[in-house]
Amino acid sequence: MSNVFESSIVIDGLIIAKWGRDVFEDMRKGGLTAANCTVSVWEGFQGTVDNIAKMKKMVAENADLLTLVRSTDDILESKANNKTGVILGFQNAHAFEDNIGYIEAFWDMGVRVVQLCYNTQNLVGTGCYERDGGLSGFGREVIAEMNRLGMMVDLSHVGSKTSEEAILESKKPVCYSHCAPLGLKEHPRNKSDEELKFIADHGGFIGVTMFPPFLKRGIEATVDDYVEAMDYIINIVGEDCVGFGTDFTQGYDKGFFDWLTHDKGRYRRLTSFGRIKNPEGIETIGETPNLAEAMKRAGWNERKIQKVLGENWLRTFKDVWGS
Amino acid sequence: MSNVFESSIVIDGLIIAKWGRDVFEDMRKGGLTAANCTVSVWEGFQGTVDNIAKMKKMVAENADLLTLVRSTDDILESKANNKTGVILGFQNAHAFEDNIGYIEAFWDMGVRVVQLCYNTQNLVGTGCYERDGGLSGFGREVIAEMNRLGMMVDLSHVGSKTSEEAILESKKPVCYSHCAPLGLKEHPRNKSDEELKFIADHGGFIGVTMFPPFLKRGIEATVDDYVEAMDYIINIVGEDCVGFGTDFTQGYDKGFFDWLTHDKGRYRRLTSFGRIKNPEGIETIGETPNLAEAMKRAGWNERKIQKVLGENWLRTFKDVWGS
Repeated sequence: MSNVFESSIVIDGLIIAKWGRDVFEDMRKGGLTAANCTVSVWEGFQGTVDNIAKMKKMVAENADLLTLVRSTDDILESKANNKTGVILGFQNAHAFEDNIGYIEAFWDMGVRVVQLCYNTQNLVGTGCYERDGGLSGFGREVIAEMNRLGMMVDLSHVGSKTSEEAILESKKPVCYSHCAPLGLKEHPRNKSDEELKFIADHGGFIGVTMFPPFLKRGIEATVDDYVEAMDYIINIVGEDCVGFGTDFTQGYDKGFFDWLTHDKGRYRRLTSFGRIKNPEGIETIGETPNLAEAMKRAGWNERKIQKVLGENWLRTFKDVWGS
Repeated sequence: MSNVFESSIVIDGLIIAKWGRDVFEDMRKGGLTAANCTVSVWEGFQGTVDNIAKMKKMVAENADLLTLVRSTDDILESKANNKTGVILGFQNAHAFEDNIGYIEAFWDMGVRVVQLCYNTQNLVGTGCYERDGGLSGFGREVIAEMNRLGMMVDLSHVGSKTSEEAILESKKPVCYSHCAPLGLKEHPRNKSDEELKFIADHGGFIGVTMFPPFLKRGIEATVDDYVEAMDYIINIVGEDCVGFGTDFTQGYDKGFFDWLTHDKGRYRRLTSFGRIKNPEGIETIGETPNLAEAMKRAGWNERKIQKVLGENWLRTFKDVWGS
């Protein structure tokens, strides 16, 4: 593990692994200071509360490795204590159902990042795998409430029009927590140069994913291709509003991907990814330190590495969460 | 009560009254053979099941006046027995939540007409009081399931684009159960000549409402203005696919209208109706026979009166329900 990596705050902007001791041990091996951990995708209110309860039980049972993050101070503390901070995050506002009061309930439970839509239409707007009619009136009210509480708006899987309108609607920075550039690979999930510039111009943030179907070389990609994707984006928006968000799905099998890629987990198929194999050099969460090595190989200086590894995320979370 | 009215099947395509013995007595007084009775607007699955249970209890307790309609034979039977048949209907597919399996559950409970959206966006499409992005992919699957079961698709409060796409998507006739012509009064809830022609050209059905904010003369309107609105529509689509759907809200107070006119019953205001006063001559359900008198005054022949009073609805319900 390189010195710069060891001294850095390292924040993974999105992990959706099969939560359990083995993944948590790998997060520690990977030197993660904190990660945005997905606890809701297609679930409604009740199912999501159940997921959160399960996750909190796991955090308590694995307190030697983990701590729950409710503020950026908690992230700094997890760094000081050599633990990984678990940030509770949703990939879908579906769990809010039709009740804006549920947003504060989830905030109280510790949820800090919520993606507005996952792939398809919900009450808020539309995801990236179907025609996108834009942000709904209810969606505007949802954003106002998330802004009031300090919950971060994530747009990674959100449609282009809903994203643009959400960026304009939000009074606090929003993010693509895990996305890749369309300029390197044509894909409905990838973001165009204009979209990347637009979110950055409006104070937003971009976490770069390494999910192979979104990378230029697909399953042939290595950790160096991942850094290339980061540099592509940094070249457009600068190095101060970019971080990483791997989208690790560690521990999951085909059944899980089937659930993700069908509307509501069970209806029409939205996309097919084919075989998933993470980029060589960063195939598991435990290999995250190799990211710093690849950044060095790409000629990055120490400051740039520290910022993209986590400092940028930390500052943006503080802007949004308020502490 | 005129002879033609007495001998006719009389079907009100939409009533959303405060259900109770006094309303049921008025339905009998009004000579209704059957009515599409709203049991869900903003409620989710559970709340709607509760409403249905309550309605069925009322039907049982008022069996001297009412009978539950599951088929058009039940409507003919209610005519023979001098009862009013209660057709269970929703004004919003929100109660389906994210589960297509709930549609059959509701079918089993007796639900026969479901409006896809109520005023705003849901998982299926968008209502008439906000920008309309069209029918969602999930919405197409919902229509396929409603078609399979024989549940009628209602589009009265649905946005223009979602309506057009639903008309094209459905393999069975769909309806505007309660609408008024835009040609007589500019209003977001009213339907243009093109929209009226489009639904009729695709085998669909139009129930004409008398809700005063949608009529040319508003609260100054009389039952004759109501018949004028019917004739306006018949002039465009002919007399075989038109019926009436009053939208009686009998028994409800301002609090109920506040609930209807705010998104999800409690968020942003969508529209204001001002004072509601039903057209003179048909201010209460019990005055429905006056409709036949007004039709006669307008020069309608007996066949036309019978068709628009209920025969057209009956035939269309049979087409859709399958029995």
